[in-house]
Formats: sequence, structure tokens, C-alpha cells
Amino acid sequence: MTPAQSQLVETVQQRFGPKVATTEAEAIAPWLTDWRGRYHGEAPALLSPGSTNEVAAIVALAAAAGVPLVPQGGNTGMVGGATPPTDGSALLLSLRRMNRIRALSPVSNLAVAEAGVILADLRTAAEVAGRRFPLDLGARGSATIGGLVSTNAGGTQVLRFGTMRSLVAGVEAVLPDGSIHNGVAALKKDNRGYDLNQLLIGAEGTLGIVTAATLRLVPGAAARAVGWVGLESPAAALQLLRMLEAGTSAVESFEILPEKTLALVLRHVPGTRRPLATAHPWHVLIEAVATDPTAEAPAALLERLLGPALERELAGDAVIAASEAQAEDFWRIRHSISEAERAGGPALQHDISVPVDDMPRFMIEGGAEAEARFPGTEAVAYGHLGDGNVHFHVRAPAGVDPQVWYAEDGPGISRHVHDMVVAAGGSISAEHGIGQMKRAELERLSAPSRMTVLRAIKTALDPHNILNPGKLVALAPDAARP
Amino acid sequence: MTPAQSQLVETVQQRFGPKVATTEAEAIAPWLTDWRGRYHGEAPALLSPGSTNEVAAIVALAAAAGVPLVPQGGNTGMVGGATPPTDGSALLLSLRRMNRIRALSPVSNLAVAEAGVILADLRTAAEVAGRRFPLDLGARGSATIGGLVSTNAGGTQVLRFGTMRSLVAGVEAVLPDGSIHNGVAALKKDNRGYDLNQLLIGAEGTLGIVTAATLRLVPGAAARAVGWVGLESPAAALQLLRMLEAGTSAVESFEILPEKTLALVLRHVPGTRRPLATAHPWHVLIEAVATDPTAEAPAALLERLLGPALERELAGDAVIAASEAQAEDFWRIRHSISEAERAGGPALQHDISVPVDDMPRFMIEGGAEAEARFPGTEAVAYGHLGDGNVHFHVRAPAGVDPQVWYAEDGPGISRHVHDMVVAAGGSISAEHGIGQMKRAELERLSAPSRMTVLRAIKTALDPHNILNPGKLVALAPDAARP
Repeated sequence: MTPAQSQLVETVQQRFGPKVATTEAEAIAPWLTDWRGRYHGEAPALLSPGSTNEVAAIVALAAAAGVPLVPQGGNTGMVGGATPPTDGSALLLSLRRMNRIRALSPVSNLAVAEAGVILADLRTAAEVAGRRFPLDLGARGSATIGGLVSTNAGGTQVLRFGTMRSLVAGVEAVLPDGSIHNGVAALKKDNRGYDLNQLLIGAEGTLGIVTAATLRLVPGAAARAVGWVGLESPAAALQLLRMLEAGTSAVESFEILPEKTLALVLRHVPGTRRPLATAHPWHVLIEAVATDPTAEAPAALLERLLGPALERELAGDAVIAASEAQAEDFWRIRHSISEAERAGGPALQHDISVPVDDMPRFMIEGGAEAEARFPGTEAVAYGHLGDGNVHFHVRAPAGVDPQVWYAEDGPGISRHVHDMVVAAGGSISAEHGIGQMKRAELERLSAPSRMTVLRAIKTALDPHNILNPGKLVALAPDAARP
Repeated sequence: MTPAQSQLVETVQQRFGPKVATTEAEAIAPWLTDWRGRYHGEAPALLSPGSTNEVAAIVALAAAAGVPLVPQGGNTGMVGGATPPTDGSALLLSLRRMNRIRALSPVSNLAVAEAGVILADLRTAAEVAGRRFPLDLGARGSATIGGLVSTNAGGTQVLRFGTMRSLVAGVEAVLPDGSIHNGVAALKKDNRGYDLNQLLIGAEGTLGIVTAATLRLVPGAAARAVGWVGLESPAAALQLLRMLEAGTSAVESFEILPEKTLALVLRHVPGTRRPLATAHPWHVLIEAVATDPTAEAPAALLERLLGPALERELAGDAVIAASEAQAEDFWRIRHSISEAERAGGPALQHDISVPVDDMPRFMIEGGAEAEARFPGTEAVAYGHLGDGNVHFHVRAPAGVDPQVWYAEDGPGISRHVHDMVVAAGGSISAEHGIGQMKRAELERLSAPSRMTVLRAIKTALDPHNILNPGKLVALAPDAARP
């Protein structure tokens, strides 16, 4: 620990009590590695403020002492964005103690949640009030609101309600100079200059530390229906989605997967079973939700809309879950893909998006191109077709040593996938962010003028590089430290 | 004209032809004054590029020569944001020639419109394709997409579909160094660092010149119903809105006005008539739109939902337009308020917002407080209750000399109104922006740390203060010019 770091820890303990700063290795250890175990860093202390004012005081002290801070919520990120640097130069700043839902109004359909509120808890609180917070993802039991705002999280409910950005009505954050940005008032219209709330959403804690957010709630679900459709191709799936969208706004999820992924799940995840008796090269899981109890029941709606698709042979076969238990079984397949993929052997994962209309082509041609270019690999794409966002995995050839393959072939394969994405006008990070994982690729694939702008924004707001240094965008080496 | 300006004009004419740069006073004159006639500036030349590449070349030349540019669309702004400075130091850059709708897809529900496309033209093009572009405001026949994006425009359809920000899926812009930011790909998910699209929306042309935008379309209207409700108070109106929202998502407009405003319209606008036979202190205009032809007809829906409100005496009386002609008559009252206000005598106008739930209190208490504080004045608030945004006008006492009153009493009255808004956690610019009109008030009422951040962003992206200097945020005098 440097003298500046020691001094900071001591001052924090004196002012706010011993539990707000700890240097105990055991307490710190769980937070030094990302949950996938791909990134590991060092930090001599863990700061755990309990209020916005405490965060502000800590950031002001850190700025004055030139000690960088790495903000962290549930530590469920996918790109190493919350893992401290390896040299121990930064302190960890956990927002987990700030876990109050300050307000939740079913009348104004807004909730104000502190950064450390866990997604599942917010969803439950909304349900108790007869509303929903319509963002969902696998890490719901650990992921926190602050992290979800800071990474503009996506998930399986984006189709109808958008990503985190469209659900955030206000942001409270501590800026790099220790001042508090109070943007939680949730004004529906506010044109007072550059929108700092929007700038902080998705900034990965590099421009400010999100301490609370005002979040939009949507009507509670009166009824839902979950369907499973077998079909010929991603192109047919997108046509089906467009047909559904023309007839209803009730479709909240539309997830695509190829037969080989379904087969992998059935093989590796006990208790899963094939939803349809017939064989199909592609599958789609559809969820429709009615929020108005007087509206057509979602099951009847899906049946009415899927009928013509079956007649026109856009869909090969379809089934609508007859019970909640069966609906859960269908979702279980979708949610088990990661687990099955891990059991299936080494694979490189890419979180990519292209314009929705181009995604069917990309899934087929991109997959074929990757497999041809890297003999023995198998490319698999599945996920949020309606968002133009799939998880594009490239599996290792049979028999390779995983570590050797990751190290020697991995970077070239990922670069190739990203090149294809950029050629299609897409994004190399659809929903996971940049963190440390994709920083070099962002640099390689962005116009230099764009990188100049990103760096200029970072330098303008955080001139001493105090907040989450080295994430998202690297400053020039000589500008990296005060 | 300075030598640098002459040189720039000459180069532009040589490279792109004579019509792309003019120094003719007659051609320039109409664009030197804002449409309300409150701001007047000077510019020795008017540049009218026809493509993004021409804009980029002009900005690069201007940056190299240190010649500021003032971007302008339809010149319909409310805060002098598109009026050049009075000293002739800047050239006008009109985007009006860039008026192509590059693409419009009813399948993906997206349109790509260049900056100079007029709002009414885009709305018509969407309707022809069976869709709607759901942003509407009085200046629809002149206002352009570039200006609407750059000011994050609002209007009368925000309730259901949000402001311009929520309708923009992508932005193309020329940055202050002449590089092109190509963000029109309309990726539904894209987390590649700070969101420049979001930063450019509402930046009033001070960070980049918007040259095109990808815009979301919504389903076409299958049927609409327009209702008029008389009631006791803004609080009753908000309760009514919440009741409607609990029963339907079809309400697209919910506009409130007091009896005295209705009376003013009836007095000054020929052909208008009172929608209800009974007298009420407050009135609400409601529009409900069905997008699904199989859904309940909006007239029946409004009748069904308004019934209980009448029974519970939340509404005193209500009528649903029996024909399109009658619906237009109702809307005519709303759209004639500005005209009637002008005929009614001098008034100070404030475009303000507070949290929606607090607006009824603010309208009553704020109005009473302003009238008590400035004897003889009359305060009137009307507009978008459901957005928490009203136009808060303070009318001059009878018999005063307008110019004297504007000059001597005006600033103090506006400061008082803005102080009340800030005390309520609101915004002094809900939908019009800052421009030159509210720059000093923004400075007076913002936390110094916030102004520091706004200035830092402007300086970072436009270090030589080339784009729309002096609008939105003033740089320190010594940093104002290269």
C-alpha cells in the first residue's frame, strides 16, 4: 500500500467508521476476480460507503491524493470492467451497502433505487406493487442497479421495453471531483444542456460513480403465454417476428437457437426435454404478455397469430405451453445454454449486434465463413434475434488443448469475428460493454477521430484518471496518471 | 468580412459551386432573425452544403481558419439558438438543402432522414407507408429533423412516445474537427463506450452538426377519438390521467388549460366555440389512438373510461368529438392558444417542467405566488400536464407600456418563476433548450460543478469553439476564441 493509499484508508475509517474501509485480505479477495474467472487484479483496500455523501467524500479524498478507485456492484460483468488493475494501484469501491429502494410509486410508475440494490430485489418490489421492472438477465440475483446502469445492460426483455438506457429516468452520481450530480428528479422533459444522465449510462464507471437511479416501471403482467416454434432458418424466424409485431405489441421475448444448441442443452442439462416432437434446424422461444386483464389472452393471441405462419409454412411446427410449469420448462432450455456450452467444451464467445434486418444473413454467412476460415471449429449463434443481438460462439476443434487454443488461436478468431461484424455495420459489444476485455479491439476497429473524442471526454471529466482507470478507453500512457 | 472568412467562402465556392456559399445580403437576411423576432445577428455569408461530405469539408476548413459556424435548420427555435452572433464573426451554415429521406422501412419501422427534411414531410412519408412519426408541434411545416434532434424537441405527442431523444435510433454528424460521426446504423444494442449519439441529441449544434438521423416509426393510426373534459382543478386532471393510464396505453395527448385561456381563445380566434355547454374552471383535451384495427374503438374506450370519472365527480362534464371535424375543432382551440395569447397583450413565457406528480400543486401555488409578488400580473399555465411540462405565462398588468415592462420588470419576473421551478426540483427549459435566451439563467441556477462539466465537454470536443459559439454554455472569455 502506498502512503497515499494508507492515508486515504485511515481518513475514511476515522470519518465514517471502520467498516467503511477494510484492508483484510479475506474480505477483499472475493472481489479481485471477475465471476467468470478471466480477470484478476489486486487492491490493498475495499471501501464500502453507505451513502451518497460518503461516496462523494471518498472520491474527493481520492482525487486530492491521486488514488484511483474501481467501482464495483455485484461483480457480474462479462468484460472485466469491475476488476482492479494488477499492480494494486487502485482501491476497490463497493456500492453494495447502498441497497435501499428509496421510493417506488405505482402511480407515477417510477422507482428510485440505490446503486447496490440487487436486480431481483427491485423486480420483486415492483411486483408487490402490481408493476414490473422489465429488465431481466441471468445474473439477476447478484447484479446491482449501479452496474446495470453503468453498463447499459440488456437481457431477454429488451424487445418490448429497450435496454437499461430506456428504463432510466434519472441518475444520481458522484463525479470525479467529488461533486454530486443530482439527476434523479425524473423530469420527463429537461433540455438544460448536455445530458449528463445519458453520458453516465454505459460509461462503465469511468466518468462518475452511479449512486442511485430513477427507473421506469411498466404495468404488471395480467397473463403470459410462452410458445416454442420450430422453423427452417433465421430468415424465417425474422419474418415470423415481423408478422407477430404487425399484429400485436405484446411480444416481450423472441429468442432464437439452432438445433445443435438445443441438442447440447438436452445432452448436458438434466430434466430438459424437446418441446416439439418434430425435428427442425432452428427454434424460437416466444413470450407474449398481456398487461390489460380485458385484453385478448396471450395464449389465444399467439395461437391466432401463429396459425397463418404455420399455414404459410413460415413455421414448421409450434406449441404453446399448456401450463406455467411447461412455460418454465421452455425458458429453462434458454437459460441453460451457457451451462450446456461450458459442458460442451472450449469456445470463444462474442456479444455482437448488427442491424436487425441483416442478422439472419449474418448468422448463416458469418458462421459458415468462420468455420471455413478456422478448420475444425464450429460456429454457433443464438439469442435476441429481435434486438439484432446474438451470442456468436466459436467452439474449439475436437481434441485441442483448451489453454493452448485460447492463447494461440483465440485472438485471431475473435478478431475475424469482429471484422465481420464491423463490415456489417455492427457492434463488437452489443450489451456487455468494453471493460478491459475489448479495449484493444475497440481501439483497432474504431475511426481514430472517434477514439480521440472518447479520450477527450474522459480527460475532460476525469483529468486525473481517478475513476476506473484503464477501462473502456486507455489514455495515452503519459496522461494516465496525475 | 474578415480575410479568413473571405478565403473560406472562396474555397467553398471553388470546390462545391457558387450556390453552396453566398454573400448576397438579400439571401442571408431572412435567416439573421429568429422567427419570433427576439434575436437578431449578423453573418457575412450563408453556406448551404448539399451533402454530409460537403458539411465535413466546410467544418474542416472553418476549423483550420478559426471561423465559427452557426448551424441552422428551419429557424423555428424558441431561444435564439440558431441566430448568429451580432458581431458578424460567424458564418451561417444552413442544412436546408440536405432534405432527402434516405430510407423508410415499414418493416423495420425506421426512417433515415437528412437534417434538412421538414417534419411535416417526414410525417407524410411515414403515413404513406402506413406508419407514423409520432412527434408533432406547431412549427411542423418549417422545423427540420436536424434542429429537432439538436434541441431534443417535444410537442403534443410526448405522453405516449417520448421526446425526440426516444425517437432517435441513430445520428450522423460532423464533429468540430471535420470528421464524420457515423451513428445511423440503428443498432438496437450497442455498448461501445460513451454514447456520442446521446451526447449530440439536445447539444444545440455546439458539439457537432447533425447531418442525418435514423428515426423510429410507430404503427399507423387505425382510429382516433378526441375528448374534451371540464373539471375542477389540475389535481383532478392528473387523477383522471392516472385513471386513464391504468386502463389503456392508447392516450397520446392530454393537454390542460384553464378557463381564462379558453375564454381568451374564444374571444380572439374566429370560428372557435366552447366544447361543453357547462362552465368549468379547468379543461382537458384528450386524444386516444388505436393502432390495432381489432382493438376497442378509441371513442368507445374513452367513453368506458370516462364514465367512472364522471360518476366519481373527478370530471364535471365530458364530450367525445362526434366527427373528425369536431375533433379538429377541439384541437384548433389548443393550437390557437399562442395566437390568442399574443392578441391578449404582453406576456412573459416560460417553458418549464417539474416532476409530474407535483405539477398540479405548482400550477396553482406557483401562479398565485407570482401574481402576489408582482401585483397586477396574471399567471396562466397550460399545456402538457402528463409530461410535467407547462407553458407558464405571466401577463403584464393592464395599461403598462409593453417595452418598458419587458425591459424593467421582465427579467425579475422570469428569475422568480425560474427560482420557483428550481425549488420544485424542476427544469427551466423543458423542451425549448437554452440557446442564448437562457444561458445566463442556466449559469445562475446550476451547481458550479455542473457548469464546469458542461464547459469541459464543450472544450474537449470543440477546443477552438468553432460550432455555434456562445450558445448553451459560454466558455470563459479568454478561452472563447482560438
